[in-house]
Amino acid sequence: MRDHQLIILPEKRVLTAPEGTIVSALLFENGIPIGFPCRQRGLCGKCLVEIVAGEAGLADPAERAVLDRQNRPPEFRLACRLTLRGPLSIRIAPQARLSTIAPLIEGRRRIMIIDPPLKKFAVAAPAASAADPESALDGLLAAFTPPKPAVASTVLPVLAGLDPRRAGTVTAVIYEDRRILAVEPGDSSGRAFGAAVDLGTTTVVVEIVDLSDGRTAAIAAGLNGQVRFGADVVSRITAAHLEPKKSLELRDEARRSINALLTEAFRQAGILAADCYEIVVAGNTPMNHLFLGLPMTTLAEAPFRALFSALESLDASVGGLDMNGAGRIYIAPNIKSFVGGDIAAGLAAVDIENGPEKALFIDLGTNGEIVVKNGPRFLATSTAAGPAFEGMGLSCGMIAGPGAIHKAERDGKGIDWRVLGGGEGRGICGSGLVDILAVALGQEWIDSEGRILNADRNIFLSPGLSLNQKDVREVQLAAAAIRTGIRMLLAETGLVVSDLDRIYVAGAFGSALDIGNAMRIGLIPTVLPEKIEFVGNASLAGAKVLLLSGEERMRCEKLAATIRHLSLAQDERFQEIFIDSLTFKRWK
Amino acid sequence: MRDHQLIILPEKRVLTAPEGTIVSALLFENGIPIGFPCRQRGLCGKCLVEIVAGEAGLADPAERAVLDRQNRPPEFRLACRLTLRGPLSIRIAPQARLSTIAPLIEGRRRIMIIDPPLKKFAVAAPAASAADPESALDGLLAAFTPPKPAVASTVLPVLAGLDPRRAGTVTAVIYEDRRILAVEPGDSSGRAFGAAVDLGTTTVVVEIVDLSDGRTAAIAAGLNGQVRFGADVVSRITAAHLEPKKSLELRDEARRSINALLTEAFRQAGILAADCYEIVVAGNTPMNHLFLGLPMTTLAEAPFRALFSALESLDASVGGLDMNGAGRIYIAPNIKSFVGGDIAAGLAAVDIENGPEKALFIDLGTNGEIVVKNGPRFLATSTAAGPAFEGMGLSCGMIAGPGAIHKAERDGKGIDWRVLGGGEGRGICGSGLVDILAVALGQEWIDSEGRILNADRNIFLSPGLSLNQKDVREVQLAAAAIRTGIRMLLAETGLVVSDLDRIYVAGAFGSALDIGNAMRIGLIPTVLPEKIEFVGNASLAGAKVLLLSGEERMRCEKLAATIRHLSLAQDERFQEIFIDSLTFKRWK
Repeated sequence: MRDHQLIILPEKRVLTAPEGTIVSALLFENGIPIGFPCRQRGLCGKCLVEIVAGEAGLADPAERAVLDRQNRPPEFRLACRLTLRGPLSIRIAPQARLSTIAPLIEGRRRIMIIDPPLKKFAVAAPAASAADPESALDGLLAAFTPPKPAVASTVLPVLAGLDPRRAGTVTAVIYEDRRILAVEPGDSSGRAFGAAVDLGTTTVVVEIVDLSDGRTAAIAAGLNGQVRFGADVVSRITAAHLEPKKSLELRDEARRSINALLTEAFRQAGILAADCYEIVVAGNTPMNHLFLGLPMTTLAEAPFRALFSALESLDASVGGLDMNGAGRIYIAPNIKSFVGGDIAAGLAAVDIENGPEKALFIDLGTNGEIVVKNGPRFLATSTAAGPAFEGMGLSCGMIAGPGAIHKAERDGKGIDWRVLGGGEGRGICGSGLVDILAVALGQEWIDSEGRILNADRNIFLSPGLSLNQKDVREVQLAAAAIRTGIRMLLAETGLVVSDLDRIYVAGAFGSALDIGNAMRIGLIPTVLPEKIEFVGNASLAGAKVLLLSGEERMRCEKLAATIRHLSLAQDERFQEIFIDSLTFKRWK
Repeated sequence: MRDHQLIILPEKRVLTAPEGTIVSALLFENGIPIGFPCRQRGLCGKCLVEIVAGEAGLADPAERAVLDRQNRPPEFRLACRLTLRGPLSIRIAPQARLSTIAPLIEGRRRIMIIDPPLKKFAVAAPAASAADPESALDGLLAAFTPPKPAVASTVLPVLAGLDPRRAGTVTAVIYEDRRILAVEPGDSSGRAFGAAVDLGTTTVVVEIVDLSDGRTAAIAAGLNGQVRFGADVVSRITAAHLEPKKSLELRDEARRSINALLTEAFRQAGILAADCYEIVVAGNTPMNHLFLGLPMTTLAEAPFRALFSALESLDASVGGLDMNGAGRIYIAPNIKSFVGGDIAAGLAAVDIENGPEKALFIDLGTNGEIVVKNGPRFLATSTAAGPAFEGMGLSCGMIAGPGAIHKAERDGKGIDWRVLGGGEGRGICGSGLVDILAVALGQEWIDSEGRILNADRNIFLSPGLSLNQKDVREVQLAAAAIRTGIRMLLAETGLVVSDLDRIYVAGAFGSALDIGNAMRIGLIPTVLPEKIEFVGNASLAGAKVLLLSGEERMRCEKLAATIRHLSLAQDERFQEIFIDSLTFKRWK
């Protein structure tokens, strides 16, 4: 076989390969980033190249149809349908370049390849032969090179609506490259949406994501309706365990909460529920179990184990979410009984595996989860921090929304604060709380033991807005729980704080948390500020990563399976370290 | 690496392979038939060998557990867990020998490897570690070598019932070697059942099959409740096409009919619906479509195409059958619009691909389907024969059940007959009809044009039992339809009757059809009797083949996709050949 040269412009990079080599494969083998979400099947039209010189032959009708749908002039071809038949010079179209930067976390962008398990392709539905027509489905499948995807029976009614005497276009919704979930009439390949769901113990956040480019189409947040069964995870586990039908009520409550937010977010995004074909749910282990209405026995009784870590995605109907009925629901893998899919997702969001060698990941939620990375080894734990950092369970607490005092600083002998969205403060959210306590310590309104020193036993901000002794104790206990977890994990791993290259701080705070103040009250270890990275709602960001990439999903499941868990309660050092951690003081 | 000898007794066959070679793989590569339904994962305990001499090492706990469940003495091992570590002599246990002869069709046995897509394996559910327990599911999956099967979320509640402090046994129900559909407590691996369903236009037959050995556990037959929408396929297509909600009524009617028979058959077999994990439905194309409640547009209007040929198996709930809720329903692939999954199944039942070079397959149902095989080429057609051969649509017709006259012969100047199950005849079934007409021709009660020659215009058997002129016409039309189909197919393929090596005759008749009489009235071509093979209800037998072997399923789908279809109605020769075929006469 003769060899030919392929010249790639404008780089003028020269590749040599035998006659008949497929250009996309040649580019791929030589590490030239070019996207082909359809796996070089000639369906997606993404691997566009412009023929600058040389003999490229003609596009066959199927390729031509794809190019015509994009209104491409004749010099454009699909690299996966182009073979070397002589010397050839091409220019890769900008939209064919692979790397996509997806804004994932507030203030942080992450480069990842967008390659969602759920894809839509416009494909030709050929006219039926008059003499011996093959089935409508086989006509459609002709567009797919083997191995042919499996097909759900639910697509058939749509095929019945096609005119067999006329070629047309339909859009195939394909999952994991091997299953056609749905077929839509016409070309709707541009309308593929998914949702990332952070199913928190206290709050639920839903983000609608355009699966073609990772763009956020809408976002909505609200309370988890399960709170009426108890503010913390343990009370819900107990409720469901003692009375099994409660686990179904809790399930329905979670689904209702998510569905209400989906409705709101779909409206914002201007799409229909039917446009949403995949939802990734990231919750802690009990939330993930309750979302499925599972018995809570194994989480309620020693040795406390999850029923599942990674799980096959579910039918929309099994998960009970308002989305396309043919869609799928993927649950981020649980790491262990009390370190869940929210943390697995968070670790995926920050790409912890490819990050610095020694790192700490702290999620400051109602349940505080902490993961330490020491090279290839990961150790995780969880502590019951309570909902204080989410602004709940306090006399003046509120979630970080309009009207929340989210920042505070010393002002002479007093204190000044800022309100989210301006106006009068209606309550204090987590970041405000940390600031206020740091100021109170500095002003000696409280001592390091957490005692309020004035006669009122009250930190007064304005009429109706103050923290009482009980509020301070709540924060003190929450901070001590986190601190104890970190200390014990580090001890178990043989690391000290100064070994850490990076501390990721996740949680509802987002970047509103004042790092100095958090260190001041001892919530996070004292390290150089540049080692701290606020990653905000990493669970949501991670759910989005898992929504946008099947490979990340696989990596996440693998990582989740290798993380060991340290149970604080079963450790004899726990009590002592916890009591020692109750003091508001900097880490040494 | 050193080589060692493996001696297989009693054959004394000697194989040589490097140290560390797995014995099952070595046997398999050398074409020694040994079964391992679990794909050499050490789960099924089928690849039993007895160590006669040599060093075999010890079984690990997992293998030991499998052997203990079977009460095997220590010299027995699983070939898939046995590695060569020196010279070794083994005897393959009889139950490990692969080839299984499954009785498939009345009077005919077929050798096939029983390897159903649906399998049950007893697996160890290990106790959870106290310190850092993995999830219950991951504990279970430890028994499976990678790639690990996917797991449906519905198995999780069962896992919640296991005692985490104690190792136990559960039974995994695995599908297509890659998906765990269900988990049952304890070892229920001996109770795996499926059902083969022949969904005929007129009659429905359900056969309960033991998936471990292919044995028939029960069989039940009854009418397809859809008959109230019309006796023939076309009237049902039309009904559903004109009034789309009728297609749902027809769907429900078919499902009700099948479910009634399933209930009856489960009772006979002494099993529960929950023990039945897979059902294969073989119907003609319209029946398959109506079973799914699909729009009938494409089958009602030219160019008459099916919506699907092969289809992914369905969830039990989607198919609406009374079986285990986690089970699957597989629909035998439609060949073309009017040659359906019943014929594809029938061809699989007779293994037509590996049979004689030139063959004819005739299915004498309400719809007569005919397939001709000429080497690698297959051509099929269908003709509307009407339900006469199933005993329907006649003044004295009945299906082949107790009380049916199923045989008749000349008796002097009269006629003698036999009644199924003895006693007085209550009606005439298909085979009896053919016999009676042949006698009537011989006795000159009718002429070859089908005219009844006596004054009564009546072939009298006994009071209340006779055939009138209209009855004879029904049979005449039915036989002519079949005959026309055969003639046109042979002509199209360039074959003549004497070229045929084999004629398979399928249909409700079974072997009750008198071959000489069928030739006498011209229903089937005149060939040497030994070329005729009655295969009875080949659709049901084929459904059973597809139930018992994933490989046969794949082959069947492939064959179905390659068969071309000849549309009789669109052929200009049709009218002429049909009229010529109306005469009751032998083929020349």
